[in-house]
Amino acid sequence: MRGQTITSRENPAVKQYTALASSRRRRREDGRFTTEGVKLTLEAFTAGYTPEALFLTQDLTDSVRRRLMPVAAACRRLYEISPSVAAKLAGAVSPQGVFGVFMMLDNRTQPVKIGSNGKYLLLSSLQDPGNVGTILRTAAAFGTDGVILSADCPDLYAPKVLRASMGGVFRARACVSDDLSASIAALRAAGVPVWAAMPAEGSVSLRDISLHGGGAVVVGNEGGGIAPELAALCDGALTIPMEPGCESLNAAMAAGVILWEMYR
Amino acid sequence: MRGQTITSRENPAVKQYTALASSRRRRREDGRFTTEGVKLTLEAFTAGYTPEALFLTQDLTDSVRRRLMPVAAACRRLYEISPSVAAKLAGAVSPQGVFGVFMMLDNRTQPVKIGSNGKYLLLSSLQDPGNVGTILRTAAAFGTDGVILSADCPDLYAPKVLRASMGGVFRARACVSDDLSASIAALRAAGVPVWAAMPAEGSVSLRDISLHGGGAVVVGNEGGGIAPELAALCDGALTIPMEPGCESLNAAMAAGVILWEMYR
Repeated sequence: MRGQTITSRENPAVKQYTALASSRRRRREDGRFTTEGVKLTLEAFTAGYTPEALFLTQDLTDSVRRRLMPVAAACRRLYEISPSVAAKLAGAVSPQGVFGVFMMLDNRTQPVKIGSNGKYLLLSSLQDPGNVGTILRTAAAFGTDGVILSADCPDLYAPKVLRASMGGVFRARACVSDDLSASIAALRAAGVPVWAAMPAEGSVSLRDISLHGGGAVVVGNEGGGIAPELAALCDGALTIPMEPGCESLNAAMAAGVILWEMYR
Repeated sequence: MRGQTITSRENPAVKQYTALASSRRRRREDGRFTTEGVKLTLEAFTAGYTPEALFLTQDLTDSVRRRLMPVAAACRRLYEISPSVAAKLAGAVSPQGVFGVFMMLDNRTQPVKIGSNGKYLLLSSLQDPGNVGTILRTAAAFGTDGVILSADCPDLYAPKVLRASMGGVFRARACVSDDLSASIAALRAAGVPVWAAMPAEGSVSLRDISLHGGGAVVVGNEGGGIAPELAALCDGALTIPMEPGCESLNAAMAAGVILWEMYR
């Protein structure tokens, strides 16, 4: 397991990696994304993503190299990189010297399967990549049947989303919807009740509703909430009860509490 | 409402602010902490903290100035600052031009009240300030009777904790314990069952236990979990059920789900 050695930060493979890591458009154009760290790289591989390139620093332990052997064997290009190149590739504060490039699955043409007993979360215009990653990690843990993201949410393959998800992006059933209204209509047509998570007159409390038998909940961004025209398409509003004087929860926390209620 | 004008980044008041914002030791020595932004500054004031200094940029709207009037009236020193000084004080990406210095309450000598029906969360050696802030925001929302932090958790008054808590630090009943073992013993002596949130043989599932009538749960850091000697002091282990193959939740999410179970 020994690849081509790269010591120049201007090497084309290095430039491709950093372009993929920093640009959503580049990821979409190339159909590839990057993984940093042993865990994330192994998670992508185990989930069935095809590895294309693997960059390893020379100081990795034998145990790490052994764990990465199947990925190295499956990928087209294997590189040994210098510390200076690793520093260029690294997004994390404490880089582990392991960087992968994988082929993307098209999350638009691989839709979440809709069944009337299913449990779904819809994310409308979330902004923070850390929140989206945390939600996907939680959805994977609580066996959610589908997470449907509006197209203006952070990219599923953005390094910050992947990192916060701890590989949950690869395990959760997630897809991007160009039209969240159509997704809501499709869920309702399949007999799934759809709730807008927002404070509103006549809203149902999360204490008083059972999401066990199936259901879908739309969570909006912290600042703007859910657009009224989107909320109007839902069966009703759903509120997480809170102490007086408290306005809101963090968006990931609100989603997590809802996912737990579906799962418990 | 017009104060002394500061245009020098070397002004002693500016230096004091940045020292307080960046150093936990300095905050403890001076007994003061900083707030950035309108919301956080107002939350600290409303919660009863005494303002000492307020720094405002000259381009603030009248509406913001009006909202800050009571804080400005109560504080000893009011400064108008130049954009260059604001950039020096700012920790946020989009600074709002509002910076406060407040007197700290001593969270060690203002302990959480322990009652047998109370609901408590103990945080053992958490590392991420964002997680601690999110937990305090959630604890405030769900009316938790006390959050007890081990002394090696991020400082309650660290800017990142304050920001993630959205003012929850001021609303949640939180205190720092120099000895979490003693806090566990005190809770148990008061008749409060104490659970260690961790996977363990013979652990109770969060599905099967009611935390409604009162209880305390210890949450550890994501990497290291809860120290065995601390876990041994608890009544037992408590596990959040998850899908097979999923190792863990984000620490803030685990705490949030537990706080919701106490509240619902």
